Amino acid sequence: MPDGTLGVALVGHSFMGATHSHAWRTAPRVADLPLGIDMAVVAGRDAGRAKAAAAQLGWRDSTDDWRSVLERDDVDLVDIVTPGDSHCDIAVAALEAGKHVLCEKPLANTVEEAQRMADAARAAATDGVLSMVGFNYRRVPAITLARRLVADGRLGEIRHVRAQYLQDWITDPEFPLVWRLQAERAGSGALGDIGAHIIDLSQFVTGSRITGLTGLTETFVKQRPLPAESAGLSAGAGADGATGEVTVDDAALFLTRFANGALGTFEATRFASGRKNAIRLEVNGSLGSIAFDFEQMNELWFHDHTLPAAEAGFRRIQTSEPDHPYAGLLVPARPRGGLRRGVRPPGRRPGG
Amino acid sequence: MPDGTLGVALVGHSFMGATHSHAWRTAPRVADLPLGIDMAVVAGRDAGRAKAAAAQLGWRDSTDDWRSVLERDDVDLVDIVTPGDSHCDIAVAALEAGKHVLCEKPLANTVEEAQRMADAARAAATDGVLSMVGFNYRRVPAITLARRLVADGRLGEIRHVRAQYLQDWITDPEFPLVWRLQAERAGSGALGDIGAHIIDLSQFVTGSRITGLTGLTETFVKQRPLPAESAGLSAGAGADGATGEVTVDDAALFLTRFANGALGTFEATRFASGRKNAIRLEVNGSLGSIAFDFEQMNELWFHDHTLPAAEAGFRRIQTSEPDHPYAGLLVPARPRGGLRRGVRPPGRRPGG
Amino acid sequence: MPDGTLGVALVGHSFMGATHSHAWRTAPRVADLPLGIDMAVVAGRDAGRAKAAAAQLGWRDSTDDWRSVLERDDVDLVDIVTPGDSHCDIAVAALEAGKHVLCEKPLANTVEEAQRMADAARAAATDGVLSMVGFNYRRVPAITLARRLVADGRLGEIRHVRAQYLQDWITDPEFPLVWRLQAERAGSGALGDIGAHIIDLSQFVTGSRITGLTGLTETFVKQRPLPAESAGLSAGAGADGATGEVTVDDAALFLTRFANGALGTFEATRFASGRKNAIRLEVNGSLGSIAFDFEQMNELWFHDHTLPAAEAGFRRIQTSEPDHPYAGLLVPARPRGGLRRGVRPPGRRPGG
Amino acid sequence: MPDGTLGVALVGHSFMGATHSHAWRTAPRVADLPLGIDMAVVAGRDAGRAKAAAAQLGWRDSTDDWRSVLERDDVDLVDIVTPGDSHCDIAVAALEAGKHVLCEKPLANTVEEAQRMADAARAAATDGVLSMVGFNYRRVPAITLARRLVADGRLGEIRHVRAQYLQDWITDPEFPLVWRLQAERAGSGALGDIGAHIIDLSQFVTGSRITGLTGLTETFVKQRPLPAESAGLSAGAGADGATGEVTVDDAALFLTRFANGALGTFEATRFASGRKNAIRLEVNGSLGSIAFDFEQMNELWFHDHTLPAAEAGFRRIQTSEPDHPYAGLLVPARPRGGLRRGVRPPGRRPGG
Repeated sequence: MPDGTLGVALVGHSFMGATHSHAWRTAPRVADLPLGIDMAVVAGRDAGRAKAAAAQLGWRDSTDDWRSVLERDDVDLVDIVTPGDSHCDIAVAALEAGKHVLCEKPLANTVEEAQRMADAARAAATDGVLSMVGFNYRRVPAITLARRLVADGRLGEIRHVRAQYLQDWITDPEFPLVWRLQAERAGSGALGDIGAHIIDLSQFVTGSRITGLTGLTETFVKQRPLPAESAGLSAGAGADGATGEVTVDDAALFLTRFANGALGTFEATRFASGRKNAIRLEVNGSLGSIAFDFEQMNELWFHDHTLPAAEAGFRRIQTSEPDHPYAGLLVPARPRGGLRRGVRPPGRRPGG
Repeated sequence: MPDGTLGVALVGHSFMGATHSHAWRTAPRVADLPLGIDMAVVAGRDAGRAKAAAAQLGWRDSTDDWRSVLERDDVDLVDIVTPGDSHCDIAVAALEAGKHVLCEKPLANTVEEAQRMADAARAAATDGVLSMVGFNYRRVPAITLARRLVADGRLGEIRHVRAQYLQDWITDPEFPLVWRLQAERAGSGALGDIGAHIIDLSQFVTGSRITGLTGLTETFVKQRPLPAESAGLSAGAGADGATGEVTVDDAALFLTRFANGALGTFEATRFASGRKNAIRLEVNGSLGSIAFDFEQMNELWFHDHTLPAAEAGFRRIQTSEPDHPYAGLLVPARPRGGLRRGVRPPGRRPGG
Repeated sequence: MPDGTLGVALVGHSFMGATHSHAWRTAPRVADLPLGIDMAVVAGRDAGRAKAAAAQLGWRDSTDDWRSVLERDDVDLVDIVTPGDSHCDIAVAALEAGKHVLCEKPLANTVEEAQRMADAARAAATDGVLSMVGFNYRRVPAITLARRLVADGRLGEIRHVRAQYLQDWITDPEFPLVWRLQAERAGSGALGDIGAHIIDLSQFVTGSRITGLTGLTETFVKQRPLPAESAGLSAGAGADGATGEVTVDDAALFLTRFANGALGTFEATRFASGRKNAIRLEVNGSLGSIAFDFEQMNELWFHDHTLPAAEAGFRRIQTSEPDHPYAGLLVPARPRGGLRRGVRPPGRRPGG
Repeated sequence: MPDGTLGVALVGHSFMGATHSHAWRTAPRVADLPLGIDMAVVAGRDAGRAKAAAAQLGWRDSTDDWRSVLERDDVDLVDIVTPGDSHCDIAVAALEAGKHVLCEKPLANTVEEAQRMADAARAAATDGVLSMVGFNYRRVPAITLARRLVADGRLGEIRHVRAQYLQDWITDPEFPLVWRLQAERAGSGALGDIGAHIIDLSQFVTGSRITGLTGLTETFVKQRPLPAESAGLSAGAGADGATGEVTVDDAALFLTRFANGALGTFEATRFASGRKNAIRLEVNGSLGSIAFDFEQMNELWFHDHTLPAAEAGFRRIQTSEPDHPYAGLLVPARPRGGLRRGVRPPGRRPGG
């Protein structure tokens, strides 16, 4: 990491690749980072598409050989945004090459792969190599604020966690058999793709781990049309009218117990018509509750159960105030007319 | 008022007549009243319809002569629910007969009539005769709670009042020319029918009077079909295809100043498509704000501006808790399993 | 049932007794019923309190012997609002006496009792005797409208049912050990008291039965103070400082499959701080979704998944329009100025 | 504009400067633009701070002489984000130098200045020079969608416009006398700073112009502490304890008529405790209504008044679907698993 700059390689460049590129590009402009960011190289399976992605997304270089980025001196960190079936190979190789790793979720397609990755990360950590999984929703200001309220004891003893991740993008049975619906690429369906987020968020916010569960999964639509260009399918597929088997879950439901004694209800589905990206988390404790829905991502609802009953209720905290997490970075700030540090913010009273 | 019973006469028996009947019937069953209620007699213009109304709504007797109820010993109070053009005559006569008067709003069709009624009420008051105008929304628990918060100083100095009463029942130009759209019966349109409520509520909640205003009214649909049965229209009308002139306002907008220095914006309209009975009131003060919408009538939103900014926000108070106004009377209570008086209610902590 | 009148006996007269009394008193005044209602007699364990209840709630007569009401010719129907441990005896006796029965939920404290009651109801039905369980929330206009939308095929194939009944009245560990927290009286805790409602509503709205489940229950607070007057407790209890064991569940969670292939998540709890009577039901189907929360009881949310994506979304239907279930009975109507039947309602266009 | 690149100069670099920089940096990466963007130079009053701003915000060059950027060949467009008192001079000079101009609102501090600017823009336009005012909220997807719905006739004849811009950042009387509270710098207070936005949005969405108005302004807090560093104040100010006069409005309220016959109510205030950046716009028409609140910026509420009344209501459109304005640019997209163009989006049915 010479000269105060972090060199980054991105492996993969579609949906999440574009999102990560936006983050790498923006972060040093809006935050005081300890290092500069060098968007060094993007890797893809196809050289031409990787080159086009570099131009569009703002990377200095491109390659069709992800292994080559591990050799580069100008790469300090490998950011993995490929489908789950390649996470393990790339991450382990990167860690062994002494590169920091940021890997998208779900971490791996099997427990065995995940274990190998965790072992590699632990080994590399002794040399100061860092590892991170892309649970991006942790940094939504409302979520970080929720975690802070729990940690400060404002919810008391946690009794209930209620978590849902609801989408509807495959309710149409004619929606094609894309890679996210194939177990060999994606590992699982709703469970790993979106269920992973609410499992993580529930533990991140409450600070407690899931200790047991009972649950079920379901695949509502079992056959789907093959995509016209069978990207990611075995050779021979893709003829018009041809269908293939959906090998992942459409929905996953489970009940859990947490180490702190709380109960959890979880639901991840791609069949909730009308719900686009509804990540809902409600936590009830003996002294208070929080509720969140990503469809109103700039709000945290907080109920202070210690207030007089006649004036208590869930309050809608707009998480864009000066004291909120990541204030001014992620959430549009309102005009403040040059408010200097040290001036009491509006609404703050001496006795408040 | 002999024997601890209040004898009531109802003059009029349609929309508001049914509502008032429900109230007279229910109040003594759900509240500890100082007097019993005797639903003595209902008066209407047509003897047959008045008799049917008495049977349906639960009145002991009926008449087609409202003046006759003023002679009855078993009538202590006259409840006036007729159109505005008869309020003055009935109310003044009742007051002069020594009967208490509850009169629906708008109080009168002209300032002159209102003045006559007020004079009669003041004169009767010296003999202990009581008068009241039917501003029923004052007793919505959320509104009474809002008034209490203002009176307790929780909002500090009042800066803004924002009041709207939005309906949409005459957006269709084919909607007929009913009596509420005729100045000679109704006095005014949206202004008196629904605007009266938000004027009253704004003053009731803030405890301050309007001292000046600027405004405008509009009639969007100026001709409407005459009703098939020309109830309330001059003879000769009612032929199919015939239309008549709308002589009241469809909408009334005004800006006000209050005695306490606050500014007010008011809007009453029957042309807000999709708004059914949206009585909205927001009050902003230096220490807090309240917001209310009758479309969620069991909720008051309260913002405590003295809380730390990071955790402040409008909270949704469900006005059905034991300490709320009229708790257990108007709002369905939840099962409490025999909770005795004296037990600390849920959410109340020793230091709360 | 002579003379077009239904004679009613009420057994029990506390929380639900008052509620049922209000319903019997109001129904004939606001709806066109085929029979008149005679509120004949109320029965309680204590003669004095039963007499006081009769006076307050509007019953003609009272008794401390519920069996005596089965002998009365002026009683056609027995309305049972006692704790669950007496439901079976009263209901079976009433049915055998040829009285119609309306019994509060949960139906019984054991499956055996419920079976006995069902057998008795079936036997009596051959003589035209009717039986009904008090699942009152079915008649919330929004719920009936939801059922109608499902029945009309507007939701298509049902994929998900998401049901919660959240309360918070016993979060305080000092809340006393009332009868609802004792298994011998109440049978169960959250499961039967409130879980019963969401089980019923989910089946009522979807028209499909639960065919299997997995779940768990929990009692968070296991000891509670005995009530000062040990109503419903064994003799000797009630001394200050004494506590007793909570023998029912505080929360019940379960996952289900429905006969129609849908998946269900259910949660009933009395420990959701800040949730007062949150009965939430969401149903997702291939063509649409509905969502409901009793905390906004006059609204049904409906998503029509067949609309163009650019203008689709959950719409808030205020269930107080002329075409809504029970319009004008349960929900306050807005002024309509004499709108005659046959006039097109607002918002209805010829091509609509 | 050689070589398919647009060279940009930014004049000013504080609050809106950072925001515009983010936009210039991001746009070419997320959208297919006809031109590349060259962030050529940033100008400020202080050379050191301008240089630091260039480094932080990503501009190639910096200067303390805004006039110098007019001479540069690598500058095609001048983006003006200074306080209002310098808008006219900079804009007119830039236009006369043949540079395109994007000027922040409020356009000018006086009508005379605005007129001069408009004249200059018209003159320059004959040479192909473009001018634009920074009414950024027009491009909120929900606002653009609202405009489209109106233009498509979905609202019918417009009856009402209800617009509010509510903030609370100066409710504290100890908040200092920053430049936005001084008429000589800012021109006006709430009226120009935030009122300008709702005036523009109301006309942008309805496609109709305001033709007349009545209104009032108010300054609630008339004296405020001088800032410790008297940036933007006359020399000599800034001593501790010193105060100065607030010379702009804290709130502005007005009622309007539109060319299309609609009525408007407008309110802009910085004293609405608890409202952070509440830009609310509701438009009611004969066939439908829309409602928007920037505090839930990703949602447009639409009521289709032509639907059957029993199923009509305001629907919450999440403006992140493929067919929405700026889809995928401004609003986080959800995972789509490689959905190809041409595949029917979810929720679109053949007959839909």
